[in-house]
Amino acid sequence: MPVLVTLPTDFGTADGYVGAMKGVIARLTPEAVVVDVAHDVPRHDIAHAAWVLATSAPEFPAGTIHVAVVDPGVGGARAPVIIAAGGHLYVGPDNGLFAYVAERPDLVHAITSTAFRMPSPSDTFHGRDVFAPAAAALARGLPPGAAGPATCLAGALPWATRATARGVVVHVDVYGNLITNLPGPARPLRAGGRDIAPVRTYEELPAGGLGCYTGSAGTVEIAVREGSAAAHLRLGRGAEVAFA
Amino acid sequence: MPVLVTLPTDFGTADGYVGAMKGVIARLTPEAVVVDVAHDVPRHDIAHAAWVLATSAPEFPAGTIHVAVVDPGVGGARAPVIIAAGGHLYVGPDNGLFAYVAERPDLVHAITSTAFRMPSPSDTFHGRDVFAPAAAALARGLPPGAAGPATCLAGALPWATRATARGVVVHVDVYGNLITNLPGPARPLRAGGRDIAPVRTYEELPAGGLGCYTGSAGTVEIAVREGSAAAHLRLGRGAEVAFA
Amino acid sequence: MPVLVTLPTDFGTADGYVGAMKGVIARLTPEAVVVDVAHDVPRHDIAHAAWVLATSAPEFPAGTIHVAVVDPGVGGARAPVIIAAGGHLYVGPDNGLFAYVAERPDLVHAITSTAFRMPSPSDTFHGRDVFAPAAAALARGLPPGAAGPATCLAGALPWATRATARGVVVHVDVYGNLITNLPGPARPLRAGGRDIAPVRTYEELPAGGLGCYTGSAGTVEIAVREGSAAAHLRLGRGAEVAFA
Repeated sequence: MPVLVTLPTDFGTADGYVGAMKGVIARLTPEAVVVDVAHDVPRHDIAHAAWVLATSAPEFPAGTIHVAVVDPGVGGARAPVIIAAGGHLYVGPDNGLFAYVAERPDLVHAITSTAFRMPSPSDTFHGRDVFAPAAAALARGLPPGAAGPATCLAGALPWATRATARGVVVHVDVYGNLITNLPGPARPLRAGGRDIAPVRTYEELPAGGLGCYTGSAGTVEIAVREGSAAAHLRLGRGAEVAFA
Repeated sequence: MPVLVTLPTDFGTADGYVGAMKGVIARLTPEAVVVDVAHDVPRHDIAHAAWVLATSAPEFPAGTIHVAVVDPGVGGARAPVIIAAGGHLYVGPDNGLFAYVAERPDLVHAITSTAFRMPSPSDTFHGRDVFAPAAAALARGLPPGAAGPATCLAGALPWATRATARGVVVHVDVYGNLITNLPGPARPLRAGGRDIAPVRTYEELPAGGLGCYTGSAGTVEIAVREGSAAAHLRLGRGAEVAFA
Repeated sequence: MPVLVTLPTDFGTADGYVGAMKGVIARLTPEAVVVDVAHDVPRHDIAHAAWVLATSAPEFPAGTIHVAVVDPGVGGARAPVIIAAGGHLYVGPDNGLFAYVAERPDLVHAITSTAFRMPSPSDTFHGRDVFAPAAAALARGLPPGAAGPATCLAGALPWATRATARGVVVHVDVYGNLITNLPGPARPLRAGGRDIAPVRTYEELPAGGLGCYTGSAGTVEIAVREGSAAAHLRLGRGAEVAFA
């Protein structure tokens, strides 16, 4: 089967950035199949993109290449890397993007070889000049170890491991749901000075009702039926939550 | 040719939801080709998504599988279904999404077989756990009838049939055009207390000018040139319109 | 290899317009591979879309077909055209969209043959009825010259050529970066009554800091680190800039 290359980015789809990356991959490795994952990640929001990766990448077949570009430090000290973890390959800047999906990576290599990047990459668009060529090289079958020297991941997220009884909101999704790192099943919890009762499903909530349930990532999620829990509770990522 | 699987959803492209669905389909049926149709359907807006389906799905080749996920009742009583209608296959929640495209379905089956869904689906993300696996099963060639018992569609929309002389706005598009269920060709009409004159094309309107014409769905459409008819007339979906 | 068809549009992804175009292409030429480039071009903003084309299309392999639909004059006098330029094929309305990518086209043909459009196209949706069928015909191998009579491009943009010492902002991207037509490398410049100093990379700027550098298009770009230069300087497309 063709090799899949997924693209989670914060480029939006109003500019030429996503198209430029797709063009490079198609030019270098026509047999690769590019899959849009999420281009409307909030600009420069590494932690948001890390959660997007965590909740989408593992669903793809083993061997899929995930190219994640949320890169406010482009041109600076953070290394461009290739990571193998859990049967998948990841390509992007080492800035915390891979904190969930590569907690225990099998290997990490910096991208220095010109077989994996443009000969004279710009300092401002590594998506086009480094990460897309690296993904194209992997999709042609070049081994990650040929990209450059082995290294360790420096990027981190403060809450990338699951909590037990006290935790935090790790993600606010487009519906305004507050996704925590408290492990399911849902139980009564406190957040934003409020007691929040568990329900089995979102649909059990009355219209406008607040509750929590075990979300699709297996952790406890706080929601308002056909509303935004984030707006209702005025809470965002990093807010503390605890089982009552 | 490969089987196409289209995805109209309200997931946006800031989260991992679309990617998770694509990953499941690619993992279960690598030969399926997934086509993004519309992910920025307003959250929970079933009637909006129904119109998106009506104006896009029939253009695809016969045999295309359309997986529509706008599902505020996820985990509740609405059934997950597979529908055959007009040479196409539809997969999603039976909540009215398919009111236009499946006015007269050839067959409707509930999705109960574990060949068509995950063995233990979450209560909150049937897109990933039920609808994507069902689409993957159809794309592998399993017959819709193997998904579960035959059933009837319960979901409905109030205005899913075309009007004659009096009708309603059935869709407001991203340009603010008001699309009605009045049949073309366009004639003088009244809407929002205003008389609206027909033009042949959008481009005949002066800048900022208001008029109506026969839209691309074959019904009468109200527009303001390089502006929003919805904002100008303060009308939305469901507003009454009538030929003068 | 399969023929690629890229789609830059202002259709957004809340309606059925993108899906309808993809459906037509898949129905007429199933072997074509459609690539989403940018659907969130600001509505009716031809100059914005022209820059998107300029910064994405040339990255694709030779022979790629780029179908650009930002078409406020649909149904009016502007001609639907096919252009060959720089090894690529372009399809869309002749309204200035192709000013950068087809400064010196190899050939331009109007689309009049029914082998390249629907027999009775609507007056309001040429994306579906003219441009998608034309792209499908090209993807099947029909020559551009069979589409209709040879013609010249009438559409223009005021600043489609690069400046020397005085120039303008030609694009504001989603980050609020101001992209100019001043040629790199970056040097001190004046814009909005301010002196702006060059840095090598975006990442050299302090948080909230203003500067300029050589952008990924090879021209000088003005940015605010993790902020919007457009908002900070209150400048937009067309604003004058000059090397100091």
